[in-house]
Formats: sequence, C-alpha cells, structure tokens
Amino acid sequence: MTPRHPVAVLAHPHPRSRIFAPDVWHEFTEAFDVHELGQDGDELDDLLPELFAVVGQPDLPRERLDHAPKLRAVLNVEGNFYPNVDYATCHERSIHVLGCGPAYADAVAEFALGLTIDLARGITREDRAFRAGRERYVAAGNDGAILLRGADIGLIGFGNLGRALLPLLTPFGATVRIHDPWLPDDVITRSGARAATLSDVLTRSAIVIVVATVTAETEGLLGAAELDSMPAGARLVLVSRAPVVDFDALLDRVADGRLTAAIDVWPDEPMPVDARARTLDGLVLSPHRAGGIPQAFAQIGAMVLDDLRLIEQGLPPVRMQVAARELVARYRNRPVS
Amino acid sequence: MTPRHPVAVLAHPHPRSRIFAPDVWHEFTEAFDVHELGQDGDELDDLLPELFAVVGQPDLPRERLDHAPKLRAVLNVEGNFYPNVDYATCHERSIHVLGCGPAYADAVAEFALGLTIDLARGITREDRAFRAGRERYVAAGNDGAILLRGADIGLIGFGNLGRALLPLLTPFGATVRIHDPWLPDDVITRSGARAATLSDVLTRSAIVIVVATVTAETEGLLGAAELDSMPAGARLVLVSRAPVVDFDALLDRVADGRLTAAIDVWPDEPMPVDARARTLDGLVLSPHRAGGIPQAFAQIGAMVLDDLRLIEQGLPPVRMQVAARELVARYRNRPVS
Amino acid sequence: MTPRHPVAVLAHPHPRSRIFAPDVWHEFTEAFDVHELGQDGDELDDLLPELFAVVGQPDLPRERLDHAPKLRAVLNVEGNFYPNVDYATCHERSIHVLGCGPAYADAVAEFALGLTIDLARGITREDRAFRAGRERYVAAGNDGAILLRGADIGLIGFGNLGRALLPLLTPFGATVRIHDPWLPDDVITRSGARAATLSDVLTRSAIVIVVATVTAETEGLLGAAELDSMPAGARLVLVSRAPVVDFDALLDRVADGRLTAAIDVWPDEPMPVDARARTLDGLVLSPHRAGGIPQAFAQIGAMVLDDLRLIEQGLPPVRMQVAARELVARYRNRPVS
Amino acid sequence: MTPRHPVAVLAHPHPRSRIFAPDVWHEFTEAFDVHELGQDGDELDDLLPELFAVVGQPDLPRERLDHAPKLRAVLNVEGNFYPNVDYATCHERSIHVLGCGPAYADAVAEFALGLTIDLARGITREDRAFRAGRERYVAAGNDGAILLRGADIGLIGFGNLGRALLPLLTPFGATVRIHDPWLPDDVITRSGARAATLSDVLTRSAIVIVVATVTAETEGLLGAAELDSMPAGARLVLVSRAPVVDFDALLDRVADGRLTAAIDVWPDEPMPVDARARTLDGLVLSPHRAGGIPQAFAQIGAMVLDDLRLIEQGLPPVRMQVAARELVARYRNRPVS
Repeated sequence: MTPRHPVAVLAHPHPRSRIFAPDVWHEFTEAFDVHELGQDGDELDDLLPELFAVVGQPDLPRERLDHAPKLRAVLNVEGNFYPNVDYATCHERSIHVLGCGPAYADAVAEFALGLTIDLARGITREDRAFRAGRERYVAAGNDGAILLRGADIGLIGFGNLGRALLPLLTPFGATVRIHDPWLPDDVITRSGARAATLSDVLTRSAIVIVVATVTAETEGLLGAAELDSMPAGARLVLVSRAPVVDFDALLDRVADGRLTAAIDVWPDEPMPVDARARTLDGLVLSPHRAGGIPQAFAQIGAMVLDDLRLIEQGLPPVRMQVAARELVARYRNRPVS
Repeated sequence: MTPRHPVAVLAHPHPRSRIFAPDVWHEFTEAFDVHELGQDGDELDDLLPELFAVVGQPDLPRERLDHAPKLRAVLNVEGNFYPNVDYATCHERSIHVLGCGPAYADAVAEFALGLTIDLARGITREDRAFRAGRERYVAAGNDGAILLRGADIGLIGFGNLGRALLPLLTPFGATVRIHDPWLPDDVITRSGARAATLSDVLTRSAIVIVVATVTAETEGLLGAAELDSMPAGARLVLVSRAPVVDFDALLDRVADGRLTAAIDVWPDEPMPVDARARTLDGLVLSPHRAGGIPQAFAQIGAMVLDDLRLIEQGLPPVRMQVAARELVARYRNRPVS
Repeated sequence: MTPRHPVAVLAHPHPRSRIFAPDVWHEFTEAFDVHELGQDGDELDDLLPELFAVVGQPDLPRERLDHAPKLRAVLNVEGNFYPNVDYATCHERSIHVLGCGPAYADAVAEFALGLTIDLARGITREDRAFRAGRERYVAAGNDGAILLRGADIGLIGFGNLGRALLPLLTPFGATVRIHDPWLPDDVITRSGARAATLSDVLTRSAIVIVVATVTAETEGLLGAAELDSMPAGARLVLVSRAPVVDFDALLDRVADGRLTAAIDVWPDEPMPVDARARTLDGLVLSPHRAGGIPQAFAQIGAMVLDDLRLIEQGLPPVRMQVAARELVARYRNRPVS
Repeated sequence: MTPRHPVAVLAHPHPRSRIFAPDVWHEFTEAFDVHELGQDGDELDDLLPELFAVVGQPDLPRERLDHAPKLRAVLNVEGNFYPNVDYATCHERSIHVLGCGPAYADAVAEFALGLTIDLARGITREDRAFRAGRERYVAAGNDGAILLRGADIGLIGFGNLGRALLPLLTPFGATVRIHDPWLPDDVITRSGARAATLSDVLTRSAIVIVVATVTAETEGLLGAAELDSMPAGARLVLVSRAPVVDFDALLDRVADGRLTAAIDVWPDEPMPVDARARTLDGLVLSPHRAGGIPQAFAQIGAMVLDDLRLIEQGLPPVRMQVAARELVARYRNRPVS
C-alpha cells in the first residue's frame, strides 16, 4: 500500500469542525496522513520537508517554500488571496495555490437575490412598520414596488459571485447588464446577459448588485458622481466588499430618499453603535452574513478533499479557485476579522 | 366601418387609472365604445340591452343577464370569483366570465420567493437586530441559515401562483414537492416537481409555501396536527389566503420557536393593534402586499383589451382566467376590503 | 360503494392496446364500467341512455346526444377535431369534448428539432453521400452548415406543438420569432420568444418551422410569394399539416437549390412512387412519423383516465385539449388515413 | 503611443481567412504587429527574439523557446494539444499555451444532439427508405422510436463537449448519467446530471454519447464486453475520437441489430471505399463533420484576439483552453489530416 501523503490542517482561519463534516473528515484522514496544527509556527516548519499539502492560510514566503520540496498544494480555505504567500515561487514550482471562494458563491448569490427582492418590494421595511402598528394594506404601501420580471438589473463584477447569481435571475426574464473589465464581452454575452460599461450599468438599471472583488481599480469605484448617475429611486445591493463604494456618499443619497440600498459589508465591522446607517429607513442592514452559513463552510472541506485527491492522481484541481498569477497581486481584500 | 361594440367599465373594484395605462386606455377606447360607470346600478341597467362586455364585478343574476342579450363577456378584474354572478346562465349562453388572477401571479410569486429567502436567511430579523445595536457578524448569526440550493421545498396548491413560482425555484436545484388535489400527478411531474400528498409536503419540506386558494376543502387545511407534523425549525410562507391556516395554532408554534413563518394574508385586515403576531421575532409580517403592485394592476387593463379583441374576432380569450363552471361554486374567497 | 360510471371505448381510431398500457387499462377498468365496442353503430346506441363518457371519435349529431342524457365527456383520442360532433349542443349541455393533441406534442417537438438540426448540418444528406462513397471530411462538406446557437428561427403557429418545441430551442440562445394570429403578442413575449408578423418570420429566419394547424386561414399560407420572401439558403421544416404549404412551389425552390426543407406531412399519403420529392437532395423526407410513436400513443390512455377521474369528481379536465367552441368550426384537418 | 507587440500567425493548420473574420482581422492587426508566415521555419526563427505570441501549431522545443525571451503566449488554434511543444518550459516561464477546443464545442454539441434524435427516431434511415419507395407512414415505421423526454441518457466524458451538450439536453427532462474519471462527483451533480461509473452509464442508458478525448486511459475504452453490457436496442453516438471505441466490435453489433450507432469519427479518414460501415442500415454515417463549420472556425480568431488582449493587459486569458500541465502528457490525439 502506498504511504499516505502528509497534509497539514491549520486551526485558522476556521476550526476544523466548521469546514469538515464528520464523514468528509473521516474520508480525508483515511486518504491522507493528516496533521492538525494549532498554529502555523514551529509545528508547520517541522512538517515542511515532507509535506504534500497545507490546508489553511499560513505565511509562505520563499524561504519557507524552500524547506518544503515536496509541497504540491496550498489550500487556503479563505474566499480571497492575501499577500502572505510567494505566489511566483509556487507557480514556478507548480505548487497549486487554491482558494475556496466558490464555496461561498451559492450562499452569497441567494442572499443577494433575497436582498434584491427585499429592495424591490420593501419586505423588511414593512415588517418594521407592521410591528410599529403603522402597516399599510394591499396597494397602499406598494407605490414604489417593482417586479424583477422584465426589470433592468445591473451586475458589477462577474466572478464566482456573479456567475452563481446570474442563473437565479434568469427565470425573471430581466435584462441583465454586466460590467466586468477583466472579461471580453463575449464571455458575458454567452451567459445570456449583456456586456456593459460601468456607466451603462449605473444609468440604465433599476437595481444594481455589486459583486466585484476589491482591487486597485475597484476601490472607491462607486463614488458620489457614479451614485448620482443612477436614476432616482434606483436600488443598490452590496454583498462583495465595502471599499468598492464611497459609504458616506451612499448613505447621503439613502438619507435624502434618492436611492435605497441593502448592505451586507461595512467599512468597519462591527459598525459603531451610533452609526447613522442604523436609522435609515431606506436601508436593509445586514451584518456580513451573506456567505458564512453552515452549508458554505461544509463545502470547503469537501472541496479540499476532492481537489487533493485529483492532485494526488496527477490531475488538475477543479473545485477550488486557482490563484491566477496575474490576479493575486491585484487583490486588495483584507481578511474578515 | 363596423360600429364599435359597447363595453361598460365600472369604477369598482379598481379606479380606471389603476388598471389601464394611458396608452392601453387609448387603444381600448379606439377599439370599443367604452362607457365609464361610477357604479353598477341604473347606469349599467340602461346599457344592458346593447352591451357587448362589462369590465368590473357587478351583480349579474339571471334577470339582469336576461336583459343583456348581446353580452359576450364579463371581465371581473378581480383575482377571484364571487357568487354574485349566475355562472350557469353565462356558460349556457356562452358568455365568457373571466378573472384577472394571472395578472397578480408574477407579483405574488416574486414576493413569495423574497419571503422564502428571508426565512431561510433571517434577513428581516437581522435588520431589526442591526437597528437595535445587537447585530451579529459573519457566522455568529447564521446558525439556522440554510440554502435553497438542494433544499426540500413544498408547495400547497399549483394554480396561477404555484405555476408562476415554480420556475423561479428551478435554478436552485431544490427538490420541490407539490400537493394539489385538483391535478393528476402527471401535470405536476411534467413541470419538474414531484407530486406529493399533503403529509409528504409537510413532513419532508424545510420550507412550505402556501399558494392554495380557499375552498370548502382547503379552509383550515393546516391545523395544529398538520403544523406539528412539520419538522422542528421548518419555515412556512403564507401568501394566498389566510383561512387555509389555523392562525392561533401557527402563532403558538412560532412563539415557542418550533416554526418560523412569513405571513402576507391575515384573518382580519387590518389586524388589531395589540395582535400578538406583531411581537413575534420568528415572523416576517407583511400587510397583504404580495399581489397589488402597480405593474400587476396595469396588467389587468392590457389583459382586458387583449381578450376582448380576441372575443370580438370569434376567438377564445387566452390571457385572463376562465371561470371554470366546476370551480366557481367551490371558491370561498371573500373580496379584499 | 358507488356504482362505476359506464364508459364506451371504441376500437377506432386506435386499437385499445395501442393507447392503454396494461397497468393504465387495469386502473381504468377498476375505476369505470368500461365497454369495449368494435364499432360505433348499434352497440353505442344501446349504451347511450346511461353512458357517462365515450372514448373514440364516433359521430355525435344532436339526435344521438339527445339519447345520452347522462353523457359528460367525449374523449376523441385524435389530435384534431372533426365536424362529426355537434359541439354547440355539447357545450350547452356542459359535455366536455376533449382531444388528445397534447399527447403527441413532445414527440412532434423532438422530431421537429431533429429535422431542424438535420437541415442546419446536412446529417441525412451526408449519410447518403457516405454510403455512395462520396463523403467529404471535416470542413469540406460543411460550407452551408450553421449553428442553431444565436440563429434566427421562426415558428408559424404556437399551439400544442409550438409550446412543446420552444423550450427545446431555449438553450441554443436563438432569436425565435413566432407568428400566431390567434394570440396576443404578450403571450408569445412572455414565453421568451418575439411575436412577429408572417412576413417578419419568413424574411428574417434562417430556419422556419411550421407547426400551425390547418384552418381556412392557414390553408395555402405559404405560397410561391411567401417562399420567395425567405432568404436564399433558408430552411423549412414542415411537421404539422401539408395544406399549409403550396407543395409544388416548395419543391420547385428546393429543386433549384434556393431552399432546403424537411417534410413530414404530405399532400397524399402514401405519395406516388414517382413523386419528384423522392429524388431531391435538398429534402429530408419523412413519412408522417413525427407524432405517432409508442410513447405518444400510451399517453392517450393515461390522459383519458386522468381527465375522466377529474370529471367524475366534478373538477375540470386538465390533460386533454378542450374543444374550444370558437375554434372547432375553423379546423380543416382531415383524419390521417 | 506604445509600440504594438509582435505576433506571428502561421498559415497552418488553418488559412488565416478561415479563422479570422474580416472585422476581427482588422481589429487584430490594429492592436498587434501581426506577421503572417507561410510556414514555421526560418521566418518564425527570425521573429522569435522579439515575439510576444504565436498563433498556430509550430514545433516549440526548449531550444526554440530559449530564443524567444519575450514570448508570452502560444495560441495553437487546434482543438487538441500535441507533443510538439515543451509544455514544462512554457509553464515555468509563464508562457500561456492555449487551445481552441471551446470554439468547436457548440458545433459538436448541436451535431451530437442531432445524431441523438436521429437514432432515437430513425430520421436518416427513413429518408433512405422514402427515396427507395419503401417508406412506412405514421405508426408503421415507429416501432423502435423513443422520446428523449424522460429517457436515460449517458455521457462518457464531461469536458468542453459534454459541458456544451448537457444544457441542450436539459429541457428534455432526461436522466443524464455522466462518467468522467477526471472529475469529482460533485462537479457533475451540480451541473444537474448524475455522476456514474462507466458500467452504470452503459447498462442503464438508452442512448450513450461519447464525448471523451483520447488518453492512455480511454483508448479502447468501449470494447466488446462493454458494448455487450449495453441493453439490446441501445444507441451509441460517437463524436469525439474514434480510438475510444473498438470499431470492429461496434460494427458487429450494429450488423446483427443489437445496437444502432451514429459515427462522426473514424479509425481511418477517409474510410476505404469498401468499408462495411457504408452498408449498415443501423448506422448514421458522418464524415467528421461535427466541429469544423464556418462559425466554429470564425470563433477561433475572435478568441485569439480576446485572449491576447487580456494577456497584454496582464490579465489571465479566459476564452481559449489552458493547456493543463497535468493533462498535456496524457492526450493521445492525432492531428486531423
């Protein structure tokens, strides 16, 4: 029998039990020689010379990689890539660096659709009114309500999240415009949506859903001018990363009734107790809950196991996201604290 | 030029401007000799001898129909059929009696999906918590959150509403079980869902969506025993008619945390100010807002015009709902006040 | 126990075993008091006074209906309605007259798609060439080949067949234009296609699929002028009824290479042995095989049983096609001999 | 203005005009300093020191790559990868090696569906019969005809071709089982199909569609024993590569009526004039025409342009297929002559 390959599993950023269902963990430990590490310090260093793969987000500078001659894969179990890994060396040595963004995509996409319908129909707002005894029945409270069917919907970004979201919008027969400067138009067109400029998305959509990651290019992408280019009454759903939007500018426009918005990601988490966002009726407030649900976490372990098995067989991994060498330097995401 | 056929349009239950967009109204008055009536009393009686069609919900007993020998269509512009029309006589005389339930189907279906995601993910609940300064970030507030993807979802009823809703659920890859005793299994199976008994729907679904109309058979369909057959933690969405559910029994189970629910239709509207429903955290409260949105109302006029044109050409109407003679006697809906 | 209702099943137009699978037949005879009749003469007359329903296509003039006071349903087990039934009396007496067109819709739709791809790609033509030793490999024989993806496809008619076919075209992302003068544009638009005039369909489509029934209006609908309005190289698929097209005009245009066509229905069946159609390379020849496959026939019995059960319960039938009183007089179909 | 990057375009394997539409070629020559080469000999060598990218399939051993220090991309404009490129060096130097398999995927998928319906319904066979004057009308020739709706369909392989084909099968509501040993079950399950063993696919499918590429593992995958495990009357569609199937064994089973098959790829092309395949009525014969249609070729140029632009901007290519370093050594495809 072939000896099992040694794999280190770090307790950060996720405790093991969060990302590995019991049956998956059992299979994993049968298939690999798994070492659970409390931290990524000396313990990891001791394992490096024989290590086949590491599951977690440890610092992996050149010198550490040099001590891991058999390393074949880094599975970072985070949705984003951070600059604590020497990606160039990994690429050159054909070490797979993989992220688990796809594990969260369904959860975020469904949540984004929920927020979108909420903004279209005022569900959260009227629930609050009902509790306060000022609910309005039937047509009385529906003045601003709109259908998604046939609506103009804009997506900013068409990565994991956008690709999981678009099929959920398909049965509404909406006109979906997508802006993603990293993709040729044809990729978007083939998916059934329309490729569009940012300006097109903003000026022509009744609802804009921001699913872009943060890069040097997208930081502050939606400032006052961009928000003002949206039609009065437009709705904005923000589920990817807060820095894409100028928050003060957005809250100003919600406060004066020009826009409504649903926000899942915030400049500071937790937000100050006296943050004005907490009082705006035109907002749906959500404390960064779109992705991190039990089923999403459980996908991570399953993905890790599937992809490690493929790598062991000399096949390319297919479930986790490959750290594209061109892109890793561009991301500006910070870890979720 | 052929003289235009006379059509009476009643001001009730909807003011004209609510259900006819200006361009549709213009086309309508070009195509027909339209008489706007403030009420359905003497004015209507005077028109009866020459009338081709009536748009509205007037009483039409046998004697009145006898005075309308040229009447070809009654377009009731309500979502339901009430017992104020002599349907047998209409049928015998080949007078089309049409309802506009289909006009509301998209609006209700989208709203039902919004409520479903809200219950699955706690959107409204956490918005309230955020405003109260007790929000929980990321995984902390997501213990009970579930995906629709792959979920077991049950529908009770597969009429206009169910048929508009099912396609919206398709991209989630959910297992959808449908109970509708008026339909052979094959009709449900062909739509991509599974035909199921009521018990199957209740015991095997994580989320049950009630889209059944009220009849002698469905009144009180979901009583204490049925609700107790649902698994702990199950979610109930109620968007069709309140009498289908035993409200006290439902609120008891929400109060003790066994179920959560989203409710759009109520035993009394408006509900008393001290109704306990207003205080239950496990509820999403909605004041009968699922169907009555501007775009749904505007569909009604367009449907009326389309179907009257077909009838005038000797073709069957295709957009509004035909009052099936077998079913009109079974409905127990009351007008929305 | 309630006595079972008497139902007559005629041996024409289909032998019983063709349309009733053994298990369906068993259920049927358990549920109803079934009388198998070899013909519709005296035997049927004897049963009329007590008869609940008749399965088959007997002549039912007024006088015969007068002798059947308990008759509730005529299930004609044909795809079309013929003028041998007094539809007005049936309607007045609330006797359901039902046809089984929907049973064939899947079979015809799939076949139509097969013919469409065949014309787009030359499958049948190149199979013949291969057998004759003159096949051309790879690009050499593909000059005229086109994708359905993104193609302009036209449908003439949007009844049972069109509605079964359209979803099969959806994943190709084609632009589908539909002409059906019995339907308001909105019905077509909502289905995801574009409502179009006949001229629009003909002049803008690379492939036109004829799925219209024959009426006074559609007889000879596609004459020389209409065929000439199609772009050179266009393809025509004919699967509904032959009289819709001027056959000589069509064959002329196929013979001179202007059009190609796939034909499943013919002016005379069988066609003369010396018919020129048999020799044209630009045709796909099919001897009226689109609908009549074993699974389609077996659907008929299942539909009959389902709908009779509903009618017995006082519910409207939902699987077979109701003979719309406006339309029965318009059909010009002849029985398939 | 930045100088345009030099790109070499080889006249093989495709003449330029086949793969570049005029407008795309115009854009391409505006964006890059394009050099058209008649062959890949001295001309190419002269360009190597400054070359940014090469479009074509030249031999690129280590020594040649060493002379191309600025090379960033090899766009091979073939559907497969051959062993004439030093992939390891390319990977190490971050030179993208891209194939245009995806350009053919739509064409092959549509063709495969056409062949599948043909086998299900006997279109080609009955066209031949009609021409020979022995056609059978309506039910007479439909004994073996089956619907795709609800059928058991098996796919062997789930790469570019399988992924383009599966959505075309979705509206049929078929049960699709897929065998692909390079993929975890979850990838297949998520797509809506069922992950299956080869044995499962063969024994449970009414129709098996072979869309696997040739590797050491798939060569001769379907031998006599495997073909005999298929149910009598099963249908086989072969559109990827001939060596996957034992041809003699397949033809034996078609000859004796146990199986029918549609074959687009052959052990020798052209096939001998006296090949017995040419005479078998249970075959649909196609001379390698599934992929090479004008629209597929034209996609290649568009893909080349899109991906080169991305690479120039420091972004990853997204339209062509990346030569996975794990897989290039496994392919056993030979160029189409």
